[in-house]
Amino acid sequence: MRALIVYAHPEPTSFSAAMLRVAREALEGAGHEVEVSDLYAEGFDPTAGRHDFLDVADPDRFHYQSEQAHAAATGTFAPDIVREQERVARADLLLFVFPLWWGGVPAILKGWFDRVLAYGFAYEDGMRYETGFFRGRRGLLGVVTGGTRHRFSSGGSYGAIEQVLWPTQHCMIEYLGLTTFEPFVAYAAPRVDDAQRAAYLDQWRERVLDAAADELSDPDDRTVPLGGMLR
Amino acid sequence: MRALIVYAHPEPTSFSAAMLRVAREALEGAGHEVEVSDLYAEGFDPTAGRHDFLDVADPDRFHYQSEQAHAAATGTFAPDIVREQERVARADLLLFVFPLWWGGVPAILKGWFDRVLAYGFAYEDGMRYETGFFRGRRGLLGVVTGGTRHRFSSGGSYGAIEQVLWPTQHCMIEYLGLTTFEPFVAYAAPRVDDAQRAAYLDQWRERVLDAAADELSDPDDRTVPLGGMLR
Repeated sequence: MRALIVYAHPEPTSFSAAMLRVAREALEGAGHEVEVSDLYAEGFDPTAGRHDFLDVADPDRFHYQSEQAHAAATGTFAPDIVREQERVARADLLLFVFPLWWGGVPAILKGWFDRVLAYGFAYEDGMRYETGFFRGRRGLLGVVTGGTRHRFSSGGSYGAIEQVLWPTQHCMIEYLGLTTFEPFVAYAAPRVDDAQRAAYLDQWRERVLDAAADELSDPDDRTVPLGGMLR
Repeated sequence: MRALIVYAHPEPTSFSAAMLRVAREALEGAGHEVEVSDLYAEGFDPTAGRHDFLDVADPDRFHYQSEQAHAAATGTFAPDIVREQERVARADLLLFVFPLWWGGVPAILKGWFDRVLAYGFAYEDGMRYETGFFRGRRGLLGVVTGGTRHRFSSGGSYGAIEQVLWPTQHCMIEYLGLTTFEPFVAYAAPRVDDAQRAAYLDQWRERVLDAAADELSDPDDRTVPLGGMLR
């Protein structure tokens, strides 16, 4: 199993960083290969634009998806996007480790979705969800919140965690066709005590190993290669 | 009424750009003042980091909210953040005009939330929702989607639009304490015909004017100035 961990936190002593380390060590310890896209450390640029492309489909009007389709068809994505797409293409398991900011992923990770998971590479018309390009691969979110579990319950002020994570879990990782798992959430990580933080890391290690170890329901299911790899 | 339109699209001929123009003309025509944060045109940097601050609270460990609190208390936000915070502080009405990418705001707009609406400026512990700093001000989302209305219904593949926009509407603009309105959504704007696009713009104009014209339920409700302006 080859795993890609897409990681979005600027501080190496953060709890998100601890989750990254635990995931990497657990997977490597179980004999899996691990790559990390450390978006902050690598200075990933989150802003979608003309600089995503080495060529131009329409110089008069910038329509992002059309330029993405052109780049996928002609192999003209910018180098930083190609690097990330190659990492994605190699991975059987995608982990996303991030702190929840304003109810969603940090901008640097949102930009990774906007730019890397391009039309023609990661999806096309009619190739989404159960027909998604990533069918047969797996995806798991590892989320760190400042707010307590109660605030992310259905009676809590932010709403149920399923509702808050819906665009990330459903509109992003499920959309790709990934086999997904319940998101792991370390609630109030900066506020709980050391014993609870250690317990979170133990639970996270188990969740990561489970995601890597589960048998694919049907290996033949993985028949649709990633779009960009076809060309 | 002073309005700030935070606008996130790279292409001047896009439907999002048309919505920006309509909103600006409608508001100015009704005698309101309008400022625009044109995030793409102004090259807004969406990545949160040490560069957000002119001073350092803790050189050993970068804890974002703590650095934000320190910058709010000492007036040491970086100039691009100060510029945006001053725009926010002047505004009675905040409009957000953006295309829906991966079920959420483009990274450049997510970064505007992450960086500009800082702890100590836009919220503090216990100062959220009904006690939020922006109480008495108003917020409205203007959203452009590629997907059809059906896809954003409760039986549709993306889920109900209320569910998709929950983190943006509830965890972002309602969190601030703004008086909010039902988001305006121009569904499938690139696919519908010109008549439907014109109808969308008419409806949008009306929604913007309504948001600006409604009487405040209680003008005295606006007693909590924005945090950063106090210092």
